[in-house]
Amino acid sequence: MSEAVRKVRQALKRRSVVLSGFLACFCIFIPAHMEAEGPLVLQSDFGIEDASVAAMKGIAAKVSGSLNVHDLTHEIPQFNIWEAANRLKEAASFWPAGTVFVSVVDPGVGSGERSVVLKTRSGHYFVTPDNGTLTFVAEQLGIEELRQIDLSDNRVTGSSEFSTFHGRDLYAHVGANLASGHMFFQQVGRRLPPEIVELKHVKCNVSDGVAHGSIPVLDKRFGNVWTNIPLKLFGKLGIAAGEPVSVKISRRGTVIFEHTMVFSRSFSEVPVGDPLVFVNNLGEIALATNRGNFAETHGIEAGTEWSVEMSSAEE
Amino acid sequence: MSEAVRKVRQALKRRSVVLSGFLACFCIFIPAHMEAEGPLVLQSDFGIEDASVAAMKGIAAKVSGSLNVHDLTHEIPQFNIWEAANRLKEAASFWPAGTVFVSVVDPGVGSGERSVVLKTRSGHYFVTPDNGTLTFVAEQLGIEELRQIDLSDNRVTGSSEFSTFHGRDLYAHVGANLASGHMFFQQVGRRLPPEIVELKHVKCNVSDGVAHGSIPVLDKRFGNVWTNIPLKLFGKLGIAAGEPVSVKISRRGTVIFEHTMVFSRSFSEVPVGDPLVFVNNLGEIALATNRGNFAETHGIEAGTEWSVEMSSAEE
Amino acid sequence: MSEAVRKVRQALKRRSVVLSGFLACFCIFIPAHMEAEGPLVLQSDFGIEDASVAAMKGIAAKVSGSLNVHDLTHEIPQFNIWEAANRLKEAASFWPAGTVFVSVVDPGVGSGERSVVLKTRSGHYFVTPDNGTLTFVAEQLGIEELRQIDLSDNRVTGSSEFSTFHGRDLYAHVGANLASGHMFFQQVGRRLPPEIVELKHVKCNVSDGVAHGSIPVLDKRFGNVWTNIPLKLFGKLGIAAGEPVSVKISRRGTVIFEHTMVFSRSFSEVPVGDPLVFVNNLGEIALATNRGNFAETHGIEAGTEWSVEMSSAEE
Repeated sequence: MSEAVRKVRQALKRRSVVLSGFLACFCIFIPAHMEAEGPLVLQSDFGIEDASVAAMKGIAAKVSGSLNVHDLTHEIPQFNIWEAANRLKEAASFWPAGTVFVSVVDPGVGSGERSVVLKTRSGHYFVTPDNGTLTFVAEQLGIEELRQIDLSDNRVTGSSEFSTFHGRDLYAHVGANLASGHMFFQQVGRRLPPEIVELKHVKCNVSDGVAHGSIPVLDKRFGNVWTNIPLKLFGKLGIAAGEPVSVKISRRGTVIFEHTMVFSRSFSEVPVGDPLVFVNNLGEIALATNRGNFAETHGIEAGTEWSVEMSSAEE
Repeated sequence: MSEAVRKVRQALKRRSVVLSGFLACFCIFIPAHMEAEGPLVLQSDFGIEDASVAAMKGIAAKVSGSLNVHDLTHEIPQFNIWEAANRLKEAASFWPAGTVFVSVVDPGVGSGERSVVLKTRSGHYFVTPDNGTLTFVAEQLGIEELRQIDLSDNRVTGSSEFSTFHGRDLYAHVGANLASGHMFFQQVGRRLPPEIVELKHVKCNVSDGVAHGSIPVLDKRFGNVWTNIPLKLFGKLGIAAGEPVSVKISRRGTVIFEHTMVFSRSFSEVPVGDPLVFVNNLGEIALATNRGNFAETHGIEAGTEWSVEMSSAEE
Repeated sequence: MSEAVRKVRQALKRRSVVLSGFLACFCIFIPAHMEAEGPLVLQSDFGIEDASVAAMKGIAAKVSGSLNVHDLTHEIPQFNIWEAANRLKEAASFWPAGTVFVSVVDPGVGSGERSVVLKTRSGHYFVTPDNGTLTFVAEQLGIEELRQIDLSDNRVTGSSEFSTFHGRDLYAHVGANLASGHMFFQQVGRRLPPEIVELKHVKCNVSDGVAHGSIPVLDKRFGNVWTNIPLKLFGKLGIAAGEPVSVKISRRGTVIFEHTMVFSRSFSEVPVGDPLVFVNNLGEIALATNRGNFAETHGIEAGTEWSVEMSSAEE
C-alpha cells in the first residue's frame, strides 16, 4: 500500500488543502489498524490468585491496547522447568506463526542466567530465561535464531534496580513489544550461537520391532500417561488401529506394568474400564483407561526415571 | 455501504489514477475491520493446568487474529454433562446475539454420537456434541435450527485420523470459523430435525398454591441452593418481597428441610446467619443463608433426586 | 481530527455526489475504530468454576464487542475486602491511564452501602461498592473525583428489581460503558466529596533508625511476607544491597521472629534455604527464603495484628 499512498500524496500536493487534510486523516488513522499484531501468550508458575499475572497484562496493555493477550497456563508447579518446557511444546504449534510466547518459570536473573528470545523455524517467538524451558520447542519447531535480551535497553521504564519481578518488568515488556510490532526481533539484543540450555531427556527410537520411549508428562486431570513416541515412529511397528499392542512400563529398569492393550482411534472403542493405546493431542502415543485413571490405577508417574516399551502383540 | 462504494468506483474510473489507487486502499483495508465478528466463548472439563485450552485458542487465533475469545469455565467436573448444560444456560442469555459457544464435555466422538451446531431463536450458536449439553439452552432460548457438523469438511487441516482431541481439531475450529464469519451456519453440515438429546429433568409447576420444582445446581462457592422455579411462576403464589415463604426440600420424597424464610430483595434484609429466599442470577428462586453456607448447613445437594415445594406462609 | 473532517465535509458539499458518498463511508466506518477504548479489568470473589464471571463478560460484550476484557483475579476469598483492596493496589499502577477496574467483593447493595466510581489522579477508574475496597488505591494513586452510581439509570435494561447480582447487572454494565466510551464519567451519577470508606491499617514510618510497618498480605504461592514499607522509606536506613538487615516480626506486640538477613537484589544472591530481604513487585520491602516458604517456616501471617521492625545490622 505504501507506494499507492506515496503516489496519492504526491498528486494531492497539487490539489486542494481539503483533500490533503482528508488524506492526512487516512494516513494517520488507518495504518494504526493495519499493523499486524501477533497474539501474546503468557505462561508462568504464578497461579491466578494474586495480581502477578494481571500486572504482566497491564504492562502489555501499556505497550498496545489492541494486543490480544492469552494465557497458556499459570499453574506450572513452582520452579518446574520440565513441565514448563513440555506445556510450551503442547501448545505452540497450534498457534499461528508470529505468535509470541512469554514463559516465566524460575528465571533466576542475577544469577548469570541468560534471558533470551528464540525464533523458531516455524515463525514462533519464545521470550524466556534460557534455563531449559526451550528444550522441547527447539527440538520440535527448530531454532531459526536466538538473541540475548539486552537488559539495559528492554526493561520497563522506571523499574527499580531492585526489581525481582522480571516476568513483568522484562519478559512481558519485551513480549508485548515484539507481538505489537513496536520492536523488531533484531532489536532484542545481540545474536547468539543457536544453542540453548537443554534439559536431560531420553529420545525415543525403534529397534528390533520394539519402540522405546519415556514419559514426559501425565495428563493429570484424566490420569492418562503420555509417551514421547510420535505416531510416525510408532508406525514402524506396523500396528493398525484395532490391533493389540504389548506395553511394558519400567521405573529405573524395574517393570511396573505389563499388559496387552488395543491401539484405538477413540476411547469408546474399548469397554469402560479397559486400557487402551491412543494418539494424544500432540500426535504422540499415550496410554489410558476408558473412563478411568490409568496413571493412578497402575502407579505410573512422569519423569526421566520412567521408560516405556511397545511392540506388536499380533501372533 | 456496498452501493456507495460501487458508485464511487464507477465515478472514479473517469478520474485520475491517483484517486483510484486511493480508493483501492480504502476498499482493501477498511472492510477487514468492518467484518462483524461475534465473541467465541469456550467451555470444557479440561481444567486450566495444562495446554489443552491454550491449544483450542491457538486454533481459533489461526482462524482469525482479531477474534475475541472468552472462557465460560473449564472447571466442569469430568464427563459431567448435567453441569455443562446448566452452566451454558447460566451464561448464554447475557451474551449478545451472534455469540458462538463451544462446549466440550464428554464428546465421545467415534461412538456414533452426533456433533452439532444449534442456532437458538435468540441468535446464539452452540457447537457441541449432542449428548444432553443442549438440554437447558434449547428449552430457555428456543431451537431455531440444528445442523450436524460434517466431519469430513470441518476438521483442522492435517489433523490425524487418530486424533482424539475433537475439542481442538473440530469444535474450536468450527466455532472460530462461525464466530469470525469465515463460515456460514449453512456450511456446517446438513440440517437436522429440531430435536436434541435431552437430559431427564423435572419441570416446575404451581398447583393449589404450591410451587413444585427441583434443584439443578448449587452455587457451591457460597453454598446457595438454586431451584428451577422462575420468578414468573413463583409470582403466582402472590408472595411479596419481605413476606414469609414456607419451604420444604425433599430427597426421594423424604423431607430433609422444612422452614419459613423471608422472600428478600437482598441478603442484607435478613440478619447474619438467617436463611432467605431470593431471586438468583437467572431470575430463578434460590435459597441461602446470609453470610453462611445453606447447602452445607442443611445437607442439601443438587440433582434429579431432590425436589422443592414453596407456598405462602402468611396467615 | 474533527476539525479536518468538518472542513472536508464543507468543501465536498460543493463537489460531486460521488465523493460525498465516499466521505460518508469514511465518516461512518472510521470513527468506529478510532474510539479510544480502555481495557476493562474484572476482580471478584466468584471463583472460575461457575458462570458468574462469564455472565459479567457477556454484559460487557453486549456493550461493546471490541472491548478488551481482562481478569485481575476471581479468587479473592469470599467477602474478604482487605485482600480485594490489596490486590487492586498490586495491579492498578501497571495498567495504562483510562483502564477501568471493576471489583465486586461483598457489595451488600440494598444495605445502604454506596456504589461508586473513583477516578484517581493517575487516570484509572474503579467501579465498586464503597466498602473499603478503595482504601489502598486511593492512598497510592490519589483521589481525583468520586461519583455515586445512580442505580435508577445504570442497571442492565430489564434486570429484575429482585436481582442480587449487582456485579453483573450494575458494576460490569457501568464498567463496560465507561471503558468503551459509551458513557462519560460525569454521567455515572452525582459527584461526592472525595472521601471513601477506609479499612483500618497501620501506616509505616521510620524513627531513630528503625523502620516500622505492617504485613498487608502474604505472597501465598511462594510463602513470601510482604510489608507495607516502600523502598523509598527503607532507603532512610542507609542499608545498601548486600548489607545485613536486622528484622523483627511481632504479633500483638509479642516477637515471633527475629533474625539478621541480607538485603538482596535477587533471590540467588543468598544460598538456597537462607532468608533474605528484597523489594517486591510493588517496590515495597518483603521477606523470603530462597527456594523455601518463609511464612510457613516461621509461622507468619498477614493482617492488622502483625507488625515489622527493620534496622541496619552493620556495626
